Amino acid sequence: MSRSTPLYHQIADHLRTSIESGKLPPGTKLPSTRLLAEEHAVSILTALQALRLLEQELIVEARPKSGFYVSSRRNAAESVELKPLDIAPLDEQAEVHLSILGTPCKIRLDLANGEAALYPVKRLGILMRQLVYRDSSLLGNHVRGTGYPPLKQQIVRRAFDYGCDLDSRELLITNGCIESLALALRAITKPGDGVAVESPTYFVILQMLRNLGLKAVEIPTSEAGIDLEQLEKALAGGGISAIISIANANNPTGVTLPVNAKLELIRLAERYDAVIIEDDVYGDTHFAAVRPKPLRALSDKVILCSSFSKTLAPGIRVGWIAGGRWSSKISSLKYTSSMATPIYPQAAIAEFLRTGSYDLHLRKIRQTLAKQISKMRAAILQHFPDGTNVSDPSGGYVLWIKLPTDTTSTRQLFELARREGIGIAPGHLFATDERFDDCFRLNAGFGWNKDVEQAIKTLAHMVK
Amino acid sequence: MSRSTPLYHQIADHLRTSIESGKLPPGTKLPSTRLLAEEHAVSILTALQALRLLEQELIVEARPKSGFYVSSRRNAAESVELKPLDIAPLDEQAEVHLSILGTPCKIRLDLANGEAALYPVKRLGILMRQLVYRDSSLLGNHVRGTGYPPLKQQIVRRAFDYGCDLDSRELLITNGCIESLALALRAITKPGDGVAVESPTYFVILQMLRNLGLKAVEIPTSEAGIDLEQLEKALAGGGISAIISIANANNPTGVTLPVNAKLELIRLAERYDAVIIEDDVYGDTHFAAVRPKPLRALSDKVILCSSFSKTLAPGIRVGWIAGGRWSSKISSLKYTSSMATPIYPQAAIAEFLRTGSYDLHLRKIRQTLAKQISKMRAAILQHFPDGTNVSDPSGGYVLWIKLPTDTTSTRQLFELARREGIGIAPGHLFATDERFDDCFRLNAGFGWNKDVEQAIKTLAHMVK
Repeated sequence: MSRSTPLYHQIADHLRTSIESGKLPPGTKLPSTRLLAEEHAVSILTALQALRLLEQELIVEARPKSGFYVSSRRNAAESVELKPLDIAPLDEQAEVHLSILGTPCKIRLDLANGEAALYPVKRLGILMRQLVYRDSSLLGNHVRGTGYPPLKQQIVRRAFDYGCDLDSRELLITNGCIESLALALRAITKPGDGVAVESPTYFVILQMLRNLGLKAVEIPTSEAGIDLEQLEKALAGGGISAIISIANANNPTGVTLPVNAKLELIRLAERYDAVIIEDDVYGDTHFAAVRPKPLRALSDKVILCSSFSKTLAPGIRVGWIAGGRWSSKISSLKYTSSMATPIYPQAAIAEFLRTGSYDLHLRKIRQTLAKQISKMRAAILQHFPDGTNVSDPSGGYVLWIKLPTDTTSTRQLFELARREGIGIAPGHLFATDERFDDCFRLNAGFGWNKDVEQAIKTLAHMVK
Repeated sequence: MSRSTPLYHQIADHLRTSIESGKLPPGTKLPSTRLLAEEHAVSILTALQALRLLEQELIVEARPKSGFYVSSRRNAAESVELKPLDIAPLDEQAEVHLSILGTPCKIRLDLANGEAALYPVKRLGILMRQLVYRDSSLLGNHVRGTGYPPLKQQIVRRAFDYGCDLDSRELLITNGCIESLALALRAITKPGDGVAVESPTYFVILQMLRNLGLKAVEIPTSEAGIDLEQLEKALAGGGISAIISIANANNPTGVTLPVNAKLELIRLAERYDAVIIEDDVYGDTHFAAVRPKPLRALSDKVILCSSFSKTLAPGIRVGWIAGGRWSSKISSLKYTSSMATPIYPQAAIAEFLRTGSYDLHLRKIRQTLAKQISKMRAAILQHFPDGTNVSDPSGGYVLWIKLPTDTTSTRQLFELARREGIGIAPGHLFATDERFDDCFRLNAGFGWNKDVEQAIKTLAHMVK
């Protein structure tokens, strides 16, 4: 600490450390100003200044005639008007809707993936068969370690091309991006912590937080991306140890955060000592001329999670995580939650990446998605009632639609659509409350044809 | 509550409920006998009787001149002389030893598996290739749900043959038995809970408990199996919400619990409201005439976990869990920790089981393991110093060896052996303290030949 730091800042720093480390848990009464003054050999006024500083930071609260107490996290969050997720079961309807999501139906506009023909499954299948034929003994070998080295090499090489300087020793191959996110959260947080998420956000993230006993702090997110002012308020409220961000081709909003906003997001995280967990699973599906940089390219403190499920093979279940200084903790958690990731799928992907077909394939998939998204978007604007708002995605598979006021609840729309064999993702799944009940998400990944067009018309009709 | 329940029992029940629900956390001072008496409109003597009853149950403790306090879990466990695992990093040497375990060496006596030739990898490889050839589009389909239905059918059918009446709706296919155990623990426990484990036990279980913030309560386990008296004492001490048991062909002791002991274990779990999580991964490798029943065959409250890693293919990473009334919670946890298990490996195993080659293969693998175990055991008894104790396993891959007093620490033996290219599993990994530093585990799965015999002689020499 520099010598010029005011004394009351030094005392505040000291208390803040004790509070943040959990040594002084929420609700603890702090020493009186008199005691603090004695302990630090300062005047009572200086001690009071230190406490007032922490009060401004919402870390402590004054209780009339009683003294200063460590704020409870809940109060801290409430004071900035952001409602943390109560760690409670989902409502019954949400459970039902989630369990139906992704189950077969005629027109599959519910998830964020394409039909098998969108992916190089034949080539991958051939590679897989060759690998098994060449050496079926891999099936008989115990799997250990952090992943198949040639695959790690390919990931490091590709990440370098889009600005990330990864180290293969920090890389861990997982059973998909969901496992990557769950491991990152478990490495960084403890039950009861707050985790800031974009709102709306991918519903599995909300369920994951609930299942880990974490509190979702939902930060409003618009066409301009996450609201950084609201985020700062929430972080200043305390109790937030991680931020999950889908900064490129966000699910469900389709937004790619501009570089300036990415830098500000990183600055905020560092300032308030929260770790950014980046879900970059849609980064490779961008529609721009240049691949957008992940947050990780701008700060090596970001934990980068991704997978091959959105670009190569949704059914192969191979993801990865670059854990930086948390990588050994993350490896240990992986070892005790699923031991290791099987080798053949990793080897097939490594071979696909090595032989260079990936870039060619990416170009194709990006063009296809951009076209399908644009057609579906036009059809929605044409058929849905005036005042319907449709996102304009910068990548990925999905559109986020906001209905005009006084139309259907999308909970209801979900049920009605399902009866007609049309799957959609209703808005209430993307938040912990009703705030998006007038929104829903559509998947453009399954192609554009007469049937899909008819489905859009049917949905529009239901809304009217 | 029945009218004939004595008043002091009623008061004790009332307090017990508040304590067990967490309303009165460990360390809380209980109301004085006078207050309790007033509150329940009974005599002070009756109130005191209630507190004494809870004291006998180790739920509360009297502090001289101060009153009664809710026992801290640590104290409860200490009072029965069982040391719960401090949730702390492993010691540095243990981390190193664990990370080396399973890495290639000349003579692999460290893990609990066989060479690839022990498994039907050729046949599985052909099935896998056929499946991919027939329909590579599975690689392109998003995977959801609790598993490949034909595989579930086969598991239900086989489990029925050894006495378990599973319902395919409670079954979930996992990425191996480690994932099954982790999901079961997460469904049942909360951080800080105690979990009773056999001691010695499989080291990944101890790491898993640490990574989940759970406390290992290590129950002495001998040739006769888990010490049920010690287990009851520990359960009576409170704070234990689950029991992990490898009741068939235990790892590392090789013990199969007799049916009477299994029934008593189940009775204890039910009496003290702890859930048994059974790891039956070695059940199919038994050396007896009849397949031993899992605990689950004797009580449908047991959560049964297993995999195909010890019988079919260590590298395929397919396990399963029958979660009974916890199955929907377990499915939700699986969804948010690794989404779903990939289909091809499941389909290949299902086909292998369906075509009936599994029983034939099991007979072969059991005979092979029994022979290798018996030869290795004889060699150890011949070459090791007098007073060396060797387990006599009822199934599985491993021998558990206890050295005579005043010989080598097996931490040291591990290092020495490794230098000669021999992998062993040192005893300290199987407990949270030094109690097994004179023991180690050897794997007989890699065949019996001159090289292995020489390795046993080398180890014997090192010990002397």
